[in-house]
Amino acid sequence: MSIAEQIVAGDVRATARLLRDIDDQIPSAREFLKELYPYTGKAHVVGFTGSPGVGKSTLVDQIALRCRQDGLTVGILAVDPTSPFTGGAILGDRIRMQRHFLDSGVFIRSLATRGHFGGLTRSTNDMINVLDAMGKQVILVETVGVGQDEVEIVHSAHTTVLVTVPGMGDEVQAIKAGIMEIGNIFVVNKADREGSRKTIRELRTLIDLGLRHRPENGWQPLIVETEALKGRGIEELYHSIQKHREHLLANPQHLEEILWKRARTQLVEALKDQALRTLLERLENRGLPLDTLIRRILNKEADPYSLVHEILNEELR
Amino acid sequence: MSIAEQIVAGDVRATARLLRDIDDQIPSAREFLKELYPYTGKAHVVGFTGSPGVGKSTLVDQIALRCRQDGLTVGILAVDPTSPFTGGAILGDRIRMQRHFLDSGVFIRSLATRGHFGGLTRSTNDMINVLDAMGKQVILVETVGVGQDEVEIVHSAHTTVLVTVPGMGDEVQAIKAGIMEIGNIFVVNKADREGSRKTIRELRTLIDLGLRHRPENGWQPLIVETEALKGRGIEELYHSIQKHREHLLANPQHLEEILWKRARTQLVEALKDQALRTLLERLENRGLPLDTLIRRILNKEADPYSLVHEILNEELR
Repeated sequence: MSIAEQIVAGDVRATARLLRDIDDQIPSAREFLKELYPYTGKAHVVGFTGSPGVGKSTLVDQIALRCRQDGLTVGILAVDPTSPFTGGAILGDRIRMQRHFLDSGVFIRSLATRGHFGGLTRSTNDMINVLDAMGKQVILVETVGVGQDEVEIVHSAHTTVLVTVPGMGDEVQAIKAGIMEIGNIFVVNKADREGSRKTIRELRTLIDLGLRHRPENGWQPLIVETEALKGRGIEELYHSIQKHREHLLANPQHLEEILWKRARTQLVEALKDQALRTLLERLENRGLPLDTLIRRILNKEADPYSLVHEILNEELR
Repeated sequence: MSIAEQIVAGDVRATARLLRDIDDQIPSAREFLKELYPYTGKAHVVGFTGSPGVGKSTLVDQIALRCRQDGLTVGILAVDPTSPFTGGAILGDRIRMQRHFLDSGVFIRSLATRGHFGGLTRSTNDMINVLDAMGKQVILVETVGVGQDEVEIVHSAHTTVLVTVPGMGDEVQAIKAGIMEIGNIFVVNKADREGSRKTIRELRTLIDLGLRHRPENGWQPLIVETEALKGRGIEELYHSIQKHREHLLANPQHLEEILWKRARTQLVEALKDQALRTLLERLENRGLPLDTLIRRILNKEADPYSLVHEILNEELR
C-alpha cells in the first residue's frame, strides 16, 4: 500500500508522519496531499475560537467525547500561533493525548511550530485535508484569539463556535468589533460565574444587530451556556452544531458559499506560501541568501521595496 | 516639491494620502516608499500588545501625551486585524483623533482594512516607515491579542510593551505560553482592581523563568503598574520605555539583533505579499482569474496543491 492509501485506510502512524512532515514543511508532503485530495470533502469541520483561558480545549474535548458516543470518528487540531516561542502546545498535546489515549476513534494534533516564514493557515488547511482523507467524520479545530490568522482559519470551518466567559464586558466588545459576523454558535462557558445572564443578553443584542450585516442565509445564531469542566451544556452545544450542519445541508447555496471560501483560502494561502519558499530557495541558489539581502538593507545599500521589485523581475517570466 | 519631499518635510495631508494608498494597496505607493526609505531608521518604535479590553489605547494615548510634554513628535498606529468585518477601528480612530486634534505633533492612524489577501504585517511596516520618514520621533504601534500577526508586528518594534490586567490568571498563562520572551516591559493596567499584587508576583516569576530562555542581552524586563484612565503609572512607564531605549543604544549588538529582525520581517512580508499579488494579476491576464481556479477545485477538476505547482512552474523562470 502506498502511504496515501495507508492514510485513507485510517493508518494512524502514516497519518502522524505526514502531519509531522507538513508541520516541518518537508516538500515531499505536497505529493501526498495531491494524492489525498480526492478523498477530502466528507468531514464536517467545526472551528472553536476565543480568547486564551475561556476553556476552548475542555469544550473541544467534551464535544469529541460526545461525538464518539454517537460513533463518529473525530480529529482535533489545536492551533496555537503563540507556541513557537515556548513549545507550550506540545506539552498540552501530550496531556490531552493521554485522555483519549485508548480511543483510536480520536486523533489529536497540535500545531506547535510555524516555521520561519509563517504559513500557519496553510498548514492548518493541509492538516484538515489529511484528517478528512483519513476518514475522520468530525474535525474540531481550536484556535486562540481574534487575530487575522484565526479569522482565516475560521474560513476553513463549516461551523464556527465563538467561546466567551461571563463578566468580560470588554470581551463582548471585542467580539462585537471583530468576529461577530462569523459566529454560528456562541458559547458562554463557565456559565456558573457571575454575570452570565448579562453576557447572554449582550450577545443576543449584538447578534440581532449583527444579523443586519449578515448575508441572508436564514441561520439564526445560537447561544449556549456551558460549564465545560462539569459537562454541563455539552449536549446542547453538540445538538447546536448538528443543527447548523443540517441547516447547511438543507441550504445548498449557503453551503456552497462556505466551500467557496474554504477553497479560496486554501488556494491563496498555498500559493503565497509556496511562492515565498520557492523564491527564497532560488535566491539562495543564486548566491543571494536572505541574510545577504538583509545585510544590504541594514547597510542602506538597498531598500526592501526595490529588492522585492528586482527579485520578482528576475525570477518571474 | 515631490510627494516624498512633502512627507519628509512633515506634510500631514501628503502623509495621510500615502497611508491611505498603502491601506488600499495601490501599487504606486511602492515608488514613494522606495524614495522615503533612506529617511527611515531614526524613530523609536514601541509596540503595545495585549488582549482586547486591557486598556491599550488609553495607555498609548497617555504615553503620546507624555512624549509631547518632552517635545517629542509622535506617530500612533492602531492595528486591528479584526476590523475588516465591521470597520470598528475607523470609529475609534475618529474619537481618538479629536482628542489630539489641535496638536500637529501627533499623527494617528488605524489600520482598519486588510485587503483580500492578508498583508497586514506588511502594511504596518510600510506605515511605520512613512511615519519614520515624516520625522516622527516616537512611533507607538498598538496591536490586539497574541496571534502570529501581532507577534510579527512586534518584530517591527524596538521596545515591546505587554499589557495585562489583574485577576486574569488565565491571561497570565496565555502570556506565559506565548509571548513572554518578547516583552521588554510588562504593564499591569487597571492596577486598582483586586489581584494586582498577585498578578505582579506571577509575572515576576514567569519573567525569571523566561530569562533562562532569553538570549543574553542584559535587559531585565520591567513591570509597571498603571491606571491609564487616571494617568497613574504613566510617568514610570514612560521612563521604562526610555530606559529600554538607552539600554539598546548602550548595547549595539542587541540593537543590531532587533534591526536585523525588523529588516527580515519587512523583506519577507513584502516579498510574500508582492509575489502573491503579481501572480494573481498574471493569472487574471492569462484569462485564469482566481474565481475560475476556485471553481475547478470545487468541481474536483483540480486540487489546490497541483494548481499551485502548475502556476509556479508556469510563471517562474
